[in-house]
Amino acid sequence: MPRFFVDSAISSRVVQISGRDAEHIKVLRLRPGETFTICDGRGTDYICRLLETKGQGFEAEVVSAAPSLGEPTIHCTVYTAFPKGDKAETIIQKSVEQGASKIVFFPSARCVSKPDEKSFMKKRERWQKISEEAAKQSARGKIPEVEVLASFEAAVAEASKADMPLFFYEGDTDYSIKQALSLKSEYYTVSVMTGPEGGFEPSEVVKARESGMLISGMGKRILRCETAPLCALAAVMFHTDNL
Amino acid sequence: MPRFFVDSAISSRVVQISGRDAEHIKVLRLRPGETFTICDGRGTDYICRLLETKGQGFEAEVVSAAPSLGEPTIHCTVYTAFPKGDKAETIIQKSVEQGASKIVFFPSARCVSKPDEKSFMKKRERWQKISEEAAKQSARGKIPEVEVLASFEAAVAEASKADMPLFFYEGDTDYSIKQALSLKSEYYTVSVMTGPEGGFEPSEVVKARESGMLISGMGKRILRCETAPLCALAAVMFHTDNL
Repeated sequence: MPRFFVDSAISSRVVQISGRDAEHIKVLRLRPGETFTICDGRGTDYICRLLETKGQGFEAEVVSAAPSLGEPTIHCTVYTAFPKGDKAETIIQKSVEQGASKIVFFPSARCVSKPDEKSFMKKRERWQKISEEAAKQSARGKIPEVEVLASFEAAVAEASKADMPLFFYEGDTDYSIKQALSLKSEYYTVSVMTGPEGGFEPSEVVKARESGMLISGMGKRILRCETAPLCALAAVMFHTDNL
Repeated sequence: MPRFFVDSAISSRVVQISGRDAEHIKVLRLRPGETFTICDGRGTDYICRLLETKGQGFEAEVVSAAPSLGEPTIHCTVYTAFPKGDKAETIIQKSVEQGASKIVFFPSARCVSKPDEKSFMKKRERWQKISEEAAKQSARGKIPEVEVLASFEAAVAEASKADMPLFFYEGDTDYSIKQALSLKSEYYTVSVMTGPEGGFEPSEVVKARESGMLISGMGKRILRCETAPLCALAAVMFHTDNL
């Protein structure tokens, strides 16, 4: 069944569809009486029946509403140090597919790429668009936010607040990812924090540990900076029965 | 410590290094007395000490030998239907990083891209090179083979022989990936089989089930054809304590 995100909350039994969403309906050649799904981007899917054409838009009747099945039961934020080139886009697209609720980029000591604030803002717009496209394609119920933080310290301060604050390091660690995820039997918020191409500096690991993050490893293989967050996210979703 | 793969098994206490490996040593400016690691590509790492320059090559003494830490305890083969564009390269690179032992491509009913045998052979050479580079970068102990099979049936016949033969489908499935992986308490060989952009045909799912494969799902989100094998592989490695 065709599925669209709409920008606003749906509050009545009859929905007006205009703009980009109306274009979708035209492209798909949906006819009055046919059903499709509208997602409000806040975790609810509405099954709708197309009623009639109204000028440039359409009118549809809400048949039923239910929580979006694509949303995981946990709220996992992926914190990644700025990577080189277009790896940020890969990380966003695949994190959204795999169920991340938010993606945050931050600078770190060994980051090769440290764009200035102006170029961030430009990139952030593009990144948010990639998140939206990935959310649609993968049948998510919410569009994950993409954010940029100004410092490593700001990222640790935020990431460490999660119920399960995971910090990945390729050197000596305190836990394997499975050990860390097994420290608590229940948690809702999870942070997955990974470094840049050259890895984290030992001083950054110390800061993360002092802030209460769990210094964790993902086996003996060296994962690329764009592979590590996705591998960790898959493990988190698997462990919490969201795969 | 620098680490190289060598083409042949190491059988003596003194190793001759020539060709591409000797180039590596030159680039890294290693000097007599310095140590480095040689991996035989068959699962063993040798710590060596550089002895002396011999013409265009080098001579090194084997100090110690141990199983390569980067090798997982299971043998997991990733079977992926031919994807479009350069996605095959992404799948190879990241499967190798995450511990796959072999990567196999095969045609499937809804494959958009079905290159002929000649262009396969050309691609296969390039794909094997990507596997080798990823194995080096991620500190694997073996270089995974990249293979191409002529039909979906050939892929199922091979994949179904594994101790844990997983077939992923986005429609109705018999197991979640966690349920499937929990069906046995011990296994060595694992198959992870995933479809093309348009998914598998229902008739292909029937054939896979009849061959004994476990028809499994990965949650309610729709994963892209290049994301699915990597997500499944991460889950397999996590479940078998290889992360």
